[in-house]
Amino acid sequence: MHTIDLKNKGFRTDLVIDDITREKQPKIATKILEKTKNITVEEVIIDKDSKTNWNKKEGIYKTISFKDITDKNNFKEVEKIAIKTLKDMLSELKIKDDATVLVIGLGNSSSTPDALGPNTVDHVLVTRHLFSIGDVEEGYRNVASFKPSVTGVTGIETKDLIEGIKEKIKPDLIIVIDALASSSIERLNKTIQITSAGISPGSGVGNNRLEISKDTLGTPVIAVGIPTVVDGATIVENTLQLLIKKISYQLENKDNEKLKLVPSINQNYLSHTKELSKEQKEDLLGMVGLLDEQELKSLILEVLLPVNYNMMVTPKEIDYLIDKLSLLLGNMINKSLHARFNPTN
Amino acid sequence: MHTIDLKNKGFRTDLVIDDITREKQPKIATKILEKTKNITVEEVIIDKDSKTNWNKKEGIYKTISFKDITDKNNFKEVEKIAIKTLKDMLSELKIKDDATVLVIGLGNSSSTPDALGPNTVDHVLVTRHLFSIGDVEEGYRNVASFKPSVTGVTGIETKDLIEGIKEKIKPDLIIVIDALASSSIERLNKTIQITSAGISPGSGVGNNRLEISKDTLGTPVIAVGIPTVVDGATIVENTLQLLIKKISYQLENKDNEKLKLVPSINQNYLSHTKELSKEQKEDLLGMVGLLDEQELKSLILEVLLPVNYNMMVTPKEIDYLIDKLSLLLGNMINKSLHARFNPTN
Amino acid sequence: MHTIDLKNKGFRTDLVIDDITREKQPKIATKILEKTKNITVEEVIIDKDSKTNWNKKEGIYKTISFKDITDKNNFKEVEKIAIKTLKDMLSELKIKDDATVLVIGLGNSSSTPDALGPNTVDHVLVTRHLFSIGDVEEGYRNVASFKPSVTGVTGIETKDLIEGIKEKIKPDLIIVIDALASSSIERLNKTIQITSAGISPGSGVGNNRLEISKDTLGTPVIAVGIPTVVDGATIVENTLQLLIKKISYQLENKDNEKLKLVPSINQNYLSHTKELSKEQKEDLLGMVGLLDEQELKSLILEVLLPVNYNMMVTPKEIDYLIDKLSLLLGNMINKSLHARFNPTN
Amino acid sequence: MHTIDLKNKGFRTDLVIDDITREKQPKIATKILEKTKNITVEEVIIDKDSKTNWNKKEGIYKTISFKDITDKNNFKEVEKIAIKTLKDMLSELKIKDDATVLVIGLGNSSSTPDALGPNTVDHVLVTRHLFSIGDVEEGYRNVASFKPSVTGVTGIETKDLIEGIKEKIKPDLIIVIDALASSSIERLNKTIQITSAGISPGSGVGNNRLEISKDTLGTPVIAVGIPTVVDGATIVENTLQLLIKKISYQLENKDNEKLKLVPSINQNYLSHTKELSKEQKEDLLGMVGLLDEQELKSLILEVLLPVNYNMMVTPKEIDYLIDKLSLLLGNMINKSLHARFNPTN
Repeated sequence: MHTIDLKNKGFRTDLVIDDITREKQPKIATKILEKTKNITVEEVIIDKDSKTNWNKKEGIYKTISFKDITDKNNFKEVEKIAIKTLKDMLSELKIKDDATVLVIGLGNSSSTPDALGPNTVDHVLVTRHLFSIGDVEEGYRNVASFKPSVTGVTGIETKDLIEGIKEKIKPDLIIVIDALASSSIERLNKTIQITSAGISPGSGVGNNRLEISKDTLGTPVIAVGIPTVVDGATIVENTLQLLIKKISYQLENKDNEKLKLVPSINQNYLSHTKELSKEQKEDLLGMVGLLDEQELKSLILEVLLPVNYNMMVTPKEIDYLIDKLSLLLGNMINKSLHARFNPTN
Repeated sequence: MHTIDLKNKGFRTDLVIDDITREKQPKIATKILEKTKNITVEEVIIDKDSKTNWNKKEGIYKTISFKDITDKNNFKEVEKIAIKTLKDMLSELKIKDDATVLVIGLGNSSSTPDALGPNTVDHVLVTRHLFSIGDVEEGYRNVASFKPSVTGVTGIETKDLIEGIKEKIKPDLIIVIDALASSSIERLNKTIQITSAGISPGSGVGNNRLEISKDTLGTPVIAVGIPTVVDGATIVENTLQLLIKKISYQLENKDNEKLKLVPSINQNYLSHTKELSKEQKEDLLGMVGLLDEQELKSLILEVLLPVNYNMMVTPKEIDYLIDKLSLLLGNMINKSLHARFNPTN
Repeated sequence: MHTIDLKNKGFRTDLVIDDITREKQPKIATKILEKTKNITVEEVIIDKDSKTNWNKKEGIYKTISFKDITDKNNFKEVEKIAIKTLKDMLSELKIKDDATVLVIGLGNSSSTPDALGPNTVDHVLVTRHLFSIGDVEEGYRNVASFKPSVTGVTGIETKDLIEGIKEKIKPDLIIVIDALASSSIERLNKTIQITSAGISPGSGVGNNRLEISKDTLGTPVIAVGIPTVVDGATIVENTLQLLIKKISYQLENKDNEKLKLVPSINQNYLSHTKELSKEQKEDLLGMVGLLDEQELKSLILEVLLPVNYNMMVTPKEIDYLIDKLSLLLGNMINKSLHARFNPTN
Repeated sequence: MHTIDLKNKGFRTDLVIDDITREKQPKIATKILEKTKNITVEEVIIDKDSKTNWNKKEGIYKTISFKDITDKNNFKEVEKIAIKTLKDMLSELKIKDDATVLVIGLGNSSSTPDALGPNTVDHVLVTRHLFSIGDVEEGYRNVASFKPSVTGVTGIETKDLIEGIKEKIKPDLIIVIDALASSSIERLNKTIQITSAGISPGSGVGNNRLEISKDTLGTPVIAVGIPTVVDGATIVENTLQLLIKKISYQLENKDNEKLKLVPSINQNYLSHTKELSKEQKEDLLGMVGLLDEQELKSLILEVLLPVNYNMMVTPKEIDYLIDKLSLLLGNMINKSLHARFNPTN
């Protein structure tokens, strides 16, 4: 095994909460803002100190974790909490009630999992052109929107497009929507991250030059993202970790007569926390079982890259989920920005 | 009739050739550049003198008139002549072979007849991002593209979006594609206008403040347009003019025994040029027959506006036509800009 | 004028109410079922007697006429009345509560104004496959759906496709949705016709062989249609009729000082009913003014056919309207068929 | 490990060639029909004898394996061989030159990887309606097409829809196009299977009642498929197999000084065939390394099912690939069926 070059390639994740959960960042405190049966809102604040040894930017990160939103009631519940969370962020950033806003939908509208940003923008109520002719009622804010598409389609860096438009229309706030990558299949389409730290499209790839943030644009930026895709290597690594967890659970419960009656496809093992010993891991998975997370990730990438490094994993119903999630984010933005917004059907 | 207020509202046309044909501009010379069985290319040059009393801007206007392009051979023939015409325009404007180009597709991609611009851009080969990493073969030029959508969707003036991006990426040339309005149903989807004069989205409405042109942007602009829509009033006015023409033709040919055998649905009358006398027009169409073109247009608008001023007339097969015309313009641009471009299927 | 061959070509309309209004069918009684500020529901029953000299089939025709449905409140009001109207039709046809239903969306989904049927079907809640595995709650009916596309795309007669499927799944009721042609621009996207008489796709063209009806299929058929398009000739004929009406209104009100202050673009003339005398019509429109409706239509067709016989007239916002109208019909069908249906967002 | 219930769940594959490669079916002979640098065509004939202990149906299976078809030249080469292969199948099945054909595109057009069938049908030249009016030149065959969508959308079993239409229009041959599942990520979008055995939509799931084949419909069926998706468990199993192969390759080449200079991300290991010993496998992967293929698959499914059993893996550029592959299959069908077909752009 030692002949394998275990470079630190890492798996891409845009979620702070993924890093905290998996990398066991000791210095970062997660604060639970809200917790219901189906929904948890957590806040992480990354400052100069906590940034050490981490590729995430300083800022406030609010993470909404939820279950299935294809159910109408769940949808409404998540929407309500998302509105509250975005409103809180607006007030923490001291955005005024009459601040003008530019909403930007990042991503490629012709690739389903990447269409979250553009599709959300389709639901956003824009009013800037009406303000310019004085034709707006009380209770509506000055909002414009923009879909920069992706560099492979336009030939232009996304940040350049945004900067050019920002300089022209000078918004007080920029809200950026993007589909994210996650390093956890369990979070796929089930997490909204709202952050004041901005976003670097393709940041996992390590290019921070083109960051969209207050630092680079000079305008406050709120980035809203949902993980809609994991890469092929992630699902392999996740599966091996889950395998270890499952075996540990089964060893623990081997004399549990009741368990034996339960069909083996059950979710109980997922919440099991006791770890296997080093020897148990080696018995189970050999040398692979002895790798730490980073080494395992590197090994999998090394095996997969020569085959196809461009695989993505999505749920089969991704088209339907993107529709629902875009509507949810659109409603969240409209209700947070326009006091009198009343969604039509 | 005198009680009707015949204000000069005019019908919108974006085609110089429409104005010349219908308004009988005496000072403007039309020069035939090319003429085959199916295709005519005409050139009009509007300068300070010719501009008097006309709302079209100074510049070179090249108009390609053609027949059905749903036939494969016609398509190829029109494409070939369109490439030559655009290349000629590039050289007349002294655009260098290595000039960088920004191609802009105006219009609303979710409204079929207005989607010509965005759909054309989908066919344009962009290379700017590849130039920035040095990864481009000989024979390809630095090209970027952009779809500004429409103000009603973004809340932002199209010209502001374009100006913002232009200042960021500083192209040597801007090519703008737009679906045009025509005042003639015969030209619908059968004319390409290529002009150095730029374009004012919605210019028929009389708002020149937001013109996209060398004058306003400081960068050479070539505007390419195809009329894809006429408004409801135009078809009424066209029909009454055609009715007069048809009657004139029939009076002229009333003793032509051969004609009597021809079914009455024939196209011969369309090329008839002799006009009816004033008395004949009055017999045929009463007071309406005595109106000059401008008065007739105003009358029709006055009748239709209270009903619905937002009607558009398109061929039933408009979806198919926009597909074909977008491909044609995309190929035209690619082959004019990239010496080595070879269209894939 | 007499040299013009005024064949009876007629304009296509699929609306019974158009025929009644314009053709002044004396024997047909129109019964007002409901009338609010914005909505009228009328019923016409065509039986053997009333059918004389008319190309409409025997059956019950319910016509809902409404104003703008882009307003949220109007939308909800029209939806409510549409549900009641369809439920009434179900009960008049003695369709049982547990009758199985096949909902068919006619038309070409890639042509916007013709996509009403397929888009409506996208909103219909289908349950037939769940019934076959016994997995359906109380309050839901057995519903299947089908989009036959159009013959030009499939090569197969629409009626053959429907008949083949009907024989296989044997529904108790067939509901057919289609975009209709109207002979009146005022009714465009503002009328729902619900009829037990079935439908002949392209019936205006006179081909009844391929009718979709109880007579031809042996299963009760309810046809639901909305006019989304008028042809080019219709708008010309409509405009000339409106011109006569407007002049009549102005002559009547020429001494009305108040009217003179009103801008000439007002809707008042539309509800004016007094007709011009024969002499007045001739003064105004010459020989054309003396033509009866049928002759005028034929004349216009004769002028337009050589130019382009395939023009359609739609509102500019047709994409948006088809979206809203499809949702409205989808909700109408779901709430009429499923007692417990509760629309999601 | 023995507490884990290793049921024979299997991974879904619709490709005969997958089964042969991986299951090492000893009795089945694979015959190479054609082999170029980029393309291989193999034939497998399954008859009564070979069927023993296998869930694939009797029939001729032709498998075209190819590399990247996003390159224009490769595309043309694959297209040419695909046309030849389909023509051979037509003649082996003794389909006459004037046989009428119904082309059916299975799958859900709103889910990208499943849209291969419907999108292919969009490229098929249909002529049946023209034959019925006698308006077809020499060199064109009577072809109709149909998109049954999926049962979850229509509520109707796909086989019922097809049977209903078949009985109505009585084609001499049915060609069915479908996106397939593969058990190998290397074959994704790089294999065309053409078979006389028919197809069972969702056959991997084990439901053969709804098979679309000559046996069930009484009409010859040619099924054409391309694997466009693998499930989440497949990529894990594939990766572990590849890991073993890679380690074996590295042990074999550990003294190869040249190899040490090659970056570790190289494809050489993929063609390595020597297997690891049992002990080596256990060292590497522990108990997991000792599982046979079937046991490993079951274990992975057992781990993943509680998390999300509905994951699919596709290349990131799936939208673009489906476009290209649909065009390729459309051209293949048109050129095989219509002697004079000449593709337009």
